[in-house]
Amino acid sequence: RSTMEEPSGTHTKRKVVAVVGGGLVGSLNACYFAQRGFNVEVFETREDIRQAKIVRGRSINLALSHRGRQALKHVGMEEKIVSQGIPMHARMIHSLSGKQSPIPYGKKGQYILSVDRANLNKELLTEAEKYPNAKLNFDHKLQDWSPETGLMTFARSDGSTEHIEADLIVGCDGAFSAIRKQFLRRSRFNYSQTYIPHGYMELTMPPIDGEFAMKPNYLHIWPRNTFMMIALPNLDKTFTCTLFMPFEEFEKITMTSSASHFYYFRLPAQAMVSVKCSPYHIGDKCVLMGDAAHAVVPFYGQGMNAGFEDCIVFDEILNQFDEDLSAALPEYTRVRVPDDHAIADLAMYNYIEMRAHVNSKWFLFRKHVDNILHLLMPKTIIPLYTMVTFTRTRYHKAVERWHWQDKVKHKCFLSLSLSLSVLQIRPSVLGSVMWLHR
Amino acid sequence: RSTMEEPSGTHTKRKVVAVVGGGLVGSLNACYFAQRGFNVEVFETREDIRQAKIVRGRSINLALSHRGRQALKHVGMEEKIVSQGIPMHARMIHSLSGKQSPIPYGKKGQYILSVDRANLNKELLTEAEKYPNAKLNFDHKLQDWSPETGLMTFARSDGSTEHIEADLIVGCDGAFSAIRKQFLRRSRFNYSQTYIPHGYMELTMPPIDGEFAMKPNYLHIWPRNTFMMIALPNLDKTFTCTLFMPFEEFEKITMTSSASHFYYFRLPAQAMVSVKCSPYHIGDKCVLMGDAAHAVVPFYGQGMNAGFEDCIVFDEILNQFDEDLSAALPEYTRVRVPDDHAIADLAMYNYIEMRAHVNSKWFLFRKHVDNILHLLMPKTIIPLYTMVTFTRTRYHKAVERWHWQDKVKHKCFLSLSLSLSVLQIRPSVLGSVMWLHR
Repeated sequence: RSTMEEPSGTHTKRKVVAVVGGGLVGSLNACYFAQRGFNVEVFETREDIRQAKIVRGRSINLALSHRGRQALKHVGMEEKIVSQGIPMHARMIHSLSGKQSPIPYGKKGQYILSVDRANLNKELLTEAEKYPNAKLNFDHKLQDWSPETGLMTFARSDGSTEHIEADLIVGCDGAFSAIRKQFLRRSRFNYSQTYIPHGYMELTMPPIDGEFAMKPNYLHIWPRNTFMMIALPNLDKTFTCTLFMPFEEFEKITMTSSASHFYYFRLPAQAMVSVKCSPYHIGDKCVLMGDAAHAVVPFYGQGMNAGFEDCIVFDEILNQFDEDLSAALPEYTRVRVPDDHAIADLAMYNYIEMRAHVNSKWFLFRKHVDNILHLLMPKTIIPLYTMVTFTRTRYHKAVERWHWQDKVKHKCFLSLSLSLSVLQIRPSVLGSVMWLHR
Repeated sequence: RSTMEEPSGTHTKRKVVAVVGGGLVGSLNACYFAQRGFNVEVFETREDIRQAKIVRGRSINLALSHRGRQALKHVGMEEKIVSQGIPMHARMIHSLSGKQSPIPYGKKGQYILSVDRANLNKELLTEAEKYPNAKLNFDHKLQDWSPETGLMTFARSDGSTEHIEADLIVGCDGAFSAIRKQFLRRSRFNYSQTYIPHGYMELTMPPIDGEFAMKPNYLHIWPRNTFMMIALPNLDKTFTCTLFMPFEEFEKITMTSSASHFYYFRLPAQAMVSVKCSPYHIGDKCVLMGDAAHAVVPFYGQGMNAGFEDCIVFDEILNQFDEDLSAALPEYTRVRVPDDHAIADLAMYNYIEMRAHVNSKWFLFRKHVDNILHLLMPKTIIPLYTMVTFTRTRYHKAVERWHWQDKVKHKCFLSLSLSLSVLQIRPSVLGSVMWLHR
């Protein structure tokens, strides 16, 4: 691993990159830019979570899959993070009757990983700090910045302000991005934020007799039509359960209900938002990545993975354009927008489908048919979930291929049923012909 | 007309309504609230356009149709405004060869009106001012406001600030609404802004020998695939031409081109945005109307009409709930959001369709078929354009009916062609049967 090496590109004045946001995508991006030899300054509003007593806010577990792993691999972090995750080979559907049915995520040996958000964030921050040309600035709240000059002003909690002039500002400050607000003030910026009617609440399922309360290597799902619960395993043998329920229902629940005896309610119900926008850049000065560019609802397990993949894609484009930001930034918008919009739409589609169908035999049947077709024709029929989760097929290409495959499947079924009906008809046709010639 | 009468509802303390924005919808709304007996304060950032030398900004002409007229009628303004408009009975399509083909908007006698935006705005402001309980405050820029208390702060150009506490704040401050920014800061507010790739530019076509340069009672259209021009007549015998063109194309045009000899370029190319959001209200304190709630692209001629209809709809709901704002505001969101979203979508649909088809014979053919079917079955088949433009059918109901009619038409055509093919086949069938029995 190359983390402690001095960056090689010292032939020109090092570019100053301000990464706004020290969350998952921000801290990973810091590693990418540091590895490239840029002077990296990370600015995070909150204190250092490695010193924090309570980490508030976002969800506890995440599902790490191929795209996220590839992004970690580029900065030598894959092995370490994977070793701290728990493989989940299948969904485990819990029916109303209590029956459990596993549905594999892919082929034998393919799995997604349950990882702890806070731990992953800490590891990434520690990794970024290893680069001598990267500096982490906590307790720095963005106050103002100029997309023309790259001049930024940050407020400290002691009332002081700090200024920095950056060559590139990378907005990795999440779904409610402060950087993005400047984009919204400009003309011809397309933007949408859509809240879904469901909220979520996280609960912890403690171990039983020092062991996992359920089988650990699964993502457990309790589909119950209007509401749904999922559970992901943690290294400490607890499960983090996430209850998805329409806000109206949450409002009806009293905290004194029997559920509170079993689970510990961490937070009140949280809203879920899907954010899409375009362009991702302003001039040669600023670019949005991760949730700041494309917050997605969590029903495809791709939020973090898409954000991490942003880092690889931008890195590849920087190579392609020899670090010319005035060319790389528009290219990043051109290349990445359709993919991020595709995964945002897929996640929303899954939200609607999971509520409607995951409980039904039809859903199970289709998943099985897809997996069987994939086994029979591994190069022709690739389940959408596989393309999204276990490959780096561009998201929008995966969606295109999915539609194409659906057409092919439809045609196959059609010719199959036609052939069958022809076979049924032929005897009678033969019969009447024979009758005529009798 | 009742404009100078004292409002009758003096049994309780009059509600204070702050209308933010003195544009078309703001000034009309002021009349509505004043007529109801509320204490109305209109706050407008700019100076009084009745005193202004140059009116910058928005488009010059608007097409007033049924919904807008009905809204004006409620405050006794219809006749006056209609008398200052120019009826347009049909679109006049100018082909590449110079041929002109009229396509009527509806039945004989149905027309839309070309009205002057600035003049209409002035008339509405003057009308609002006639109410003793309405006050217009120009040069008042909204600085801050609280959706909890209704307290508002305005900045004057002399540097002073003014405060007011309103019972109801009505955001009529246009597509880039300052009121709406507060909505965006709150959780679970759905919002989208979509800029289209086209910009527009307005040009004036002067009279020729003191007369209109073209036939005045038409909305002239030059469909040219990627770009398009329309022209609306003015009372001074000029036409206001609006050139719609992709921004990329505008950038290519040099101002020294021959076009500048004929037309006077008023403004650089302007962007067009479609804004959708939900909810329209916060608690019992604030509500969005007009472009602030639903900016639409101008391709259905419904922007102003939809905004004016907002005033009627809110007025009806206030009556229904006996002016109980805590009930009326959520009801307004519930009722109006689907209709405004429908017209925003229709306008966008027309943007795409006009570019693709208005130039084609297929478009002309379909318009004619629709009009003929409407004449034959006036209660069954009503063209979408007629429902939108010449009735107050709820926009979303009009869209539903349109889809239903399309299905009916499709079925009719299908049975018609089936019947025809059966008729064609029968002779041969008869022939073979006869051959068999020979």
